[in-house]
Amino acid sequence: MKIKRSDRLVDMTHYLLNHPHTLISLTYFAQKYKSAKSSISEDLTIIKRTFETNGFGIIETLPGAAGGVRFTPSIPWDEAKDYINHLCDYMTSKERLLPGGYVYLSDILGDPEVLQQIGRIIAAKYKDQNVTAVMTVATKGVPIAQAVANYLNVPFVIVRRDSKITEGSTVSINYVSGSSDRIEKMELSKRSLPSGSRVLIVDDFMKGGGTVNGMRSMIEEFDSETVGVTVFAEAAYTDNKETDDYVSLIRVNEIDLRNRAMKVGLGSYFDE
Amino acid sequence: MKIKRSDRLVDMTHYLLNHPHTLISLTYFAQKYKSAKSSISEDLTIIKRTFETNGFGIIETLPGAAGGVRFTPSIPWDEAKDYINHLCDYMTSKERLLPGGYVYLSDILGDPEVLQQIGRIIAAKYKDQNVTAVMTVATKGVPIAQAVANYLNVPFVIVRRDSKITEGSTVSINYVSGSSDRIEKMELSKRSLPSGSRVLIVDDFMKGGGTVNGMRSMIEEFDSETVGVTVFAEAAYTDNKETDDYVSLIRVNEIDLRNRAMKVGLGSYFDE
Repeated sequence: MKIKRSDRLVDMTHYLLNHPHTLISLTYFAQKYKSAKSSISEDLTIIKRTFETNGFGIIETLPGAAGGVRFTPSIPWDEAKDYINHLCDYMTSKERLLPGGYVYLSDILGDPEVLQQIGRIIAAKYKDQNVTAVMTVATKGVPIAQAVANYLNVPFVIVRRDSKITEGSTVSINYVSGSSDRIEKMELSKRSLPSGSRVLIVDDFMKGGGTVNGMRSMIEEFDSETVGVTVFAEAAYTDNKETDDYVSLIRVNEIDLRNRAMKVGLGSYFDE
Repeated sequence: MKIKRSDRLVDMTHYLLNHPHTLISLTYFAQKYKSAKSSISEDLTIIKRTFETNGFGIIETLPGAAGGVRFTPSIPWDEAKDYINHLCDYMTSKERLLPGGYVYLSDILGDPEVLQQIGRIIAAKYKDQNVTAVMTVATKGVPIAQAVANYLNVPFVIVRRDSKITEGSTVSINYVSGSSDRIEKMELSKRSLPSGSRVLIVDDFMKGGGTVNGMRSMIEEFDSETVGVTVFAEAAYTDNKETDDYVSLIRVNEIDLRNRAMKVGLGSYFDE
């Protein structure tokens, strides 16, 4: 039975949202709905209009036999900025301050709606860069990596600081942790990243940048390339950064442990 | 300007998919689209039909002033079974066998599409149980917890085996790791789980069940209740289980380390 336009629109919207960065042939939809390709094209015009008006992302239709339709998630600049500003307000609470100048983020980074928006914002920046994998370090970066990977529709890999016997053979590297000046070790399972990968590094919080540099070296060990580095928040009050080649969504500009106060603002993602 | 039905259908589908388990008033949609509530009701009839025909989940419309529409994600039994059977085939490879009877799962649990399906399948089981938080233990359980939390639209909390200074004050408990017979310690940040929570425990792989029992004790320490336990895979070949009150998606029924062979089948989720 032929499926009605209204039902097709609902189902196609669901399908496209669940298959970002994937080229879907019009034949697939035409067969699924027992409808003419011309009808499918008209449906896609409607979906494209609504997606683009509402800032969900881009719908491209590629012509020809190898063509089809592809949804690339994105977010309008102002919406991203408003959202992160709102998170900044939410973060500015003295209860969040922890010893050592760290900030309690587990509630924020354990909220699925927040993670989805963070994932969407970070993924939008790299949407045209052919990222093939997202990398982070255990444990707190994992939810961000997963959210970004979801929008880019690529796998994510988790570098570990502790040695686990349940990962098979690993590649391990040493790196200098800037905050403690100690030599530390990180490991990644050998089979988890193919050579020639194009890797986006993400993490929750960056102080000195030592961990991020460690991940860069790790990516080199796997004969792969670092496409970019984006962290959720950075400690902008430390001036002994080991890297400046990264993007942050949020800057923690000032921490006053004595008076338990902090100043938080937009990160370099939003620098003009 | 009034928004056309076709455009409303696309936008409402997106909105409902992104706000599962949330009651949305019809007034919200009516104002957003400058349309009559009766038109919105008709739209929802179409969306309900398509969602239910395709097994995305349930659309309920609650009447009255405090009413509205709610999307509860689910998955048809057969689709879940087929999907997990397909994962079982994919898992049955001697390359996955690791020393100690563990199975390499990092690729599967680092794939956003797989995680979404696993999250959807687990969330479907607990959709009517008023879960208020999902709990797991670092690190490998985190992606599953996040995926489930996403579909249930509740926060997830991560119990840690290592002490971290960046979490603030914590509650720590001791538990017996069945596989090693050692006393181990796990910790959860004090502020991460409100008392009176209804918690769903998830994890990637269960051998003895010691870790799961540890999480149960942890939940009691927070004056909260364990609603259920679901693991992605269980080692069904060990008979010294410390708990039988759990659900698995996949059973690893047999491991032959000498010949590097394993047998994998559907877990107790699918027991009739």
